[in-house]
Amino acid sequence: MKRFVCVVALPLALAVPAQAQSQPTAKNVIYMIGDGMGPAYLSAYRYYLAGKPGNAVAPTIFDQLLVGAASTYPDDDTWVTDSAASATALASGVKSYNGAIGLDTDKQPLPSILANSKRAGKTIGVVSTSQINHATPASFVAHVASRKSYEVIANQMTNAMTAATPELDLMFGGGLSYFSQQQLETMNRAGVALATNWQQLDEIEKLPAAALLAPVALPYAIDSDRDQRLATMTFTALSLAESNPKGFSLLIEGSLIDWCGHGNDIACAMKEMEDFAAAVTVAKDYVDEHPDTLLVVTADHSTGGLTLGADGEYQWLPLEVKRVHASTETIANALLHTTAEHYAQEWSKYVDFELTNAELTELALLANENMYTVAAKIGQMLSVRSFTGWTTTGHTAVDVPVMAYGVGAEQFTGYQDNTDIPKKIINILAID
Amino acid sequence: MKRFVCVVALPLALAVPAQAQSQPTAKNVIYMIGDGMGPAYLSAYRYYLAGKPGNAVAPTIFDQLLVGAASTYPDDDTWVTDSAASATALASGVKSYNGAIGLDTDKQPLPSILANSKRAGKTIGVVSTSQINHATPASFVAHVASRKSYEVIANQMTNAMTAATPELDLMFGGGLSYFSQQQLETMNRAGVALATNWQQLDEIEKLPAAALLAPVALPYAIDSDRDQRLATMTFTALSLAESNPKGFSLLIEGSLIDWCGHGNDIACAMKEMEDFAAAVTVAKDYVDEHPDTLLVVTADHSTGGLTLGADGEYQWLPLEVKRVHASTETIANALLHTTAEHYAQEWSKYVDFELTNAELTELALLANENMYTVAAKIGQMLSVRSFTGWTTTGHTAVDVPVMAYGVGAEQFTGYQDNTDIPKKIINILAID
Ligand SMILES: [Zn+2]
Ligand SMILES: [Zn+2]
Repeated sequence: MKRFVCVVALPLALAVPAQAQSQPTAKNVIYMIGDGMGPAYLSAYRYYLAGKPGNAVAPTIFDQLLVGAASTYPDDDTWVTDSAASATALASGVKSYNGAIGLDTDKQPLPSILANSKRAGKTIGVVSTSQINHATPASFVAHVASRKSYEVIANQMTNAMTAATPELDLMFGGGLSYFSQQQLETMNRAGVALATNWQQLDEIEKLPAAALLAPVALPYAIDSDRDQRLATMTFTALSLAESNPKGFSLLIEGSLIDWCGHGNDIACAMKEMEDFAAAVTVAKDYVDEHPDTLLVVTADHSTGGLTLGADGEYQWLPLEVKRVHASTETIANALLHTTAEHYAQEWSKYVDFELTNAELTELALLANENMYTVAAKIGQMLSVRSFTGWTTTGHTAVDVPVMAYGVGAEQFTGYQDNTDIPKKIINILAID
Repeated sequence: MKRFVCVVALPLALAVPAQAQSQPTAKNVIYMIGDGMGPAYLSAYRYYLAGKPGNAVAPTIFDQLLVGAASTYPDDDTWVTDSAASATALASGVKSYNGAIGLDTDKQPLPSILANSKRAGKTIGVVSTSQINHATPASFVAHVASRKSYEVIANQMTNAMTAATPELDLMFGGGLSYFSQQQLETMNRAGVALATNWQQLDEIEKLPAAALLAPVALPYAIDSDRDQRLATMTFTALSLAESNPKGFSLLIEGSLIDWCGHGNDIACAMKEMEDFAAAVTVAKDYVDEHPDTLLVVTADHSTGGLTLGADGEYQWLPLEVKRVHASTETIANALLHTTAEHYAQEWSKYVDFELTNAELTELALLANENMYTVAAKIGQMLSVRSFTGWTTTGHTAVDVPVMAYGVGAEQFTGYQDNTDIPKKIINILAID
C-alpha cells in the first residue's frame, strides 16, 4: 500500500533512532508461532469462547493483533509445507525443502534472526510446548538435513548453549529424553541453570537457562493439570531476558495446536489455542509496558484442513466441543485398557455426552487396533457431533494469519510471503 | 491498533474534507463481493496461476489489496451464515437471520449503503454474475423475508428502477426469466435502457440501465465462450456511473465462485476466481485514475470447506485443475446424454487426462442418477487427482479476507466484523 505513509506515535520515553523516523528500531522482538494455526483455528477459537450461537462475540487476542496473512509454500515439489521448511523460512527468510532444519536446498546453513540478534549482542531463546528439539524451535538454532535427527539437533542445541561464546541463552520446553546425562552435565558445568520441573523453572534466577519439562512434548493442554504452560514459560523467559540492555529476541511456539490438528481432535486443538492465546496475552502486555518491543505472531501452515461446518450442515457447535475434557488419545488409551462393556462408563469420565449404542459398537470393533486408530475414530465422533470438518491428517497450503503489535507492527499489514517476515523483523531490529 | 496514527498521503488534486484530516471523504465506492471466497480460495488462485510447484509465485490482485479479515456469523441459531444474512450485514451493517433479504430479525427493513448513497445524490447500482435478484445483490436493494421469493425481489428491483424518484440506477447480471414482459415494458417506458445481450450492453449510453444477460445466472466462466464477463460489466457500470458529479456507489458480485464451491468443483471455482480477479483489476485501475474512490473487496462467507491438500498428502496440484475445461455439471450432462461405452470419448472433449477403468465403471453405475449426483462424483474424481479437499456442499464459518484500496483503505486493516464494513464505508463516503 505505497499510497499511505504511516507515522508511528512513539511514547516520549523511547528514543527515535538516527536512521529515519519512518523506520523505527525495536530493541526486542517476541516472535510467536502457532504451529498449524491456519485461519479456521482463529475463527473457531472466537466462537469456542462465545459458546452458543447468538451469544455475544468478543474479539480474541488474535483478532486484536491481526494485520495480514502470509503464504507458506516451500522450495520443494509441492505447494504444501511441513513445519521444518516453514520454520526455516520464518527463521532465516529463505525457503527450503520439506524436512530442512536451518539449511537451504543445497544443504547450506542459513543464519536465523536469532543468530543475527546474538551478533548484535542481544539475548536469544526458544520456547515451545513440544520437545525443544522439534522442527520449529530447532530451525531457529540448528542446521540439520532432516528434522527427524532429534539427537543431532539436541546436540547442536547443547553446544549452542555451552559454547565459549554461547549462541543460545535460553531454551524452555519439553524434550528431556533427547538429552543425554552427559549433555545435561556439560550444560551444568557451563553454568546453564537447568530445570526439569515447573518448580525449578520458577527458581531460575539468571541466564543461561534450560528447562526440559517433559520427556518429549508437554502433555496436551486438555489433558494437563497445569494451566497456562506456555504463558508461564513466556513470562519467565521475558523476565530473564529483559535485563540485557541490548535487548532480546525470543521465539515462542504453541507447538501442539498442530498435533491436535493432525489428530483431527477439535477439543484438543481449542485448548491448545487457549494455551497459546494466554501466552500471546503475556507478550502483548509486555509490549504495552515496554514499547520498544515488537511482537509478531503467525503460523507455519494450517493443519488438518479444519472447517467450521461439514456435510452440508450450516452449523458449528462449540458447546459440544466444550463437553470434551480429554484428548482423543487419552480417551482411546482409557478404552483400550478396559473391556467393551465398560466403554460407556469409561467414556463418561472424559466426555459430558453419551455415545450411542451404534458408536459404542463401532469402538468395540476396534478393541484390537492401536491407540491412534481408536483415537481417530473418537475424533470423528466428536467432529460429527460438533459439525467440525477435516480433510486430512496432514497440512494444507492455505495462507496463515499474521499478527503484529508494537514498534514496526504496521509493516506486516496485508499479504506477504513467510520469508518476508524475518526480513522485516531484521530491519525493524536493525540487525542486518 | 490505537498505537498508530496513519496519515494518508493524498494526491494534491484531491481536496481534504473540512471535517478532519484523519477522516478523508471518498466520492465513490466500488464494493465487491466474491461470493463464497474464503481464505483458501485466495491461496488456491495464487498457486493455480503459478502452476507447477517450484514455479515463481506472484502476488495476485487480491494479495496486492489484502488488508484484513472479517467474521461473518449471522443473528441466528448458528455461527454459519448464508449469503442472504451476510449480504444484508454487508449492505446495512446489521446482522440478521439466514434467508433475510434486507430485513432485520424482526422483519423490519434495513436501509443499505446504496440507499444512503442515493439520499446523498449518488448514482447507485448492482452487478452480478448470478441472476440479479439473487441473495447478494438483492440484499442491497430489496426487503423480503425469504431469499427464495425471487419474483417479489424482481418486482421490488423493477419498482426501484422505475419509481418517480428512482432508487436504483443500474442493474447488470443474469435473471431475465424472473422479470415479466410487463416489468420489462414498465422499465422501458420509464426510460431504463434495457440490454438482454452483450452487444446491447455495449450500446448503453446512459443511466438508468438494466442488463439481464442470461435467463438465470450467467454460464460458469469455465463453460463460457466469453472471457471477463464481470470485468466487462464492471467497466461499463463505472463508465456510466462516473458522470454524476456527486459520485457513485456500486455493488459488484462475483457470484458463481460460491456455486462452484457448492458443487465442490475446483476447476470451476478457479475460473470464477479468474473472472472476479479481472473485475477487481478493472476497479483498482479505476481507483488509480480516480483517487477520490474507495475500493473494498470481501467475501460473504467461505463455501465448500475447500482445502489445498487432502487425505494426508502434502500436495496440491493446480496443473491437474487446469486440465479440466468444463464444469462438472457440463461434463455430467454430456455423459448422461450418451451411453457408458462412449464415456471415455465424451470425457476427453472436456478434460485433458483420462479416467481409469475403475472410474469409468463408477460413472456408468450412475447412468440413471440425476445430473447433480453425477457432477458430484466427477468433482470427487477431479479433487482426488489434484489433492483438493472439501468438507461440505454448504458454507463454513471461517473468517473471510478483506481487501481495500484508495481513500480510507487503511481503516479496513486487521480483524473486523462484516457489519463494520458498511459502517466504515458510510463514514468514508460521509453519507450517514
Ligand atoms: Zn504438522
Ligand atoms: Zn452459497
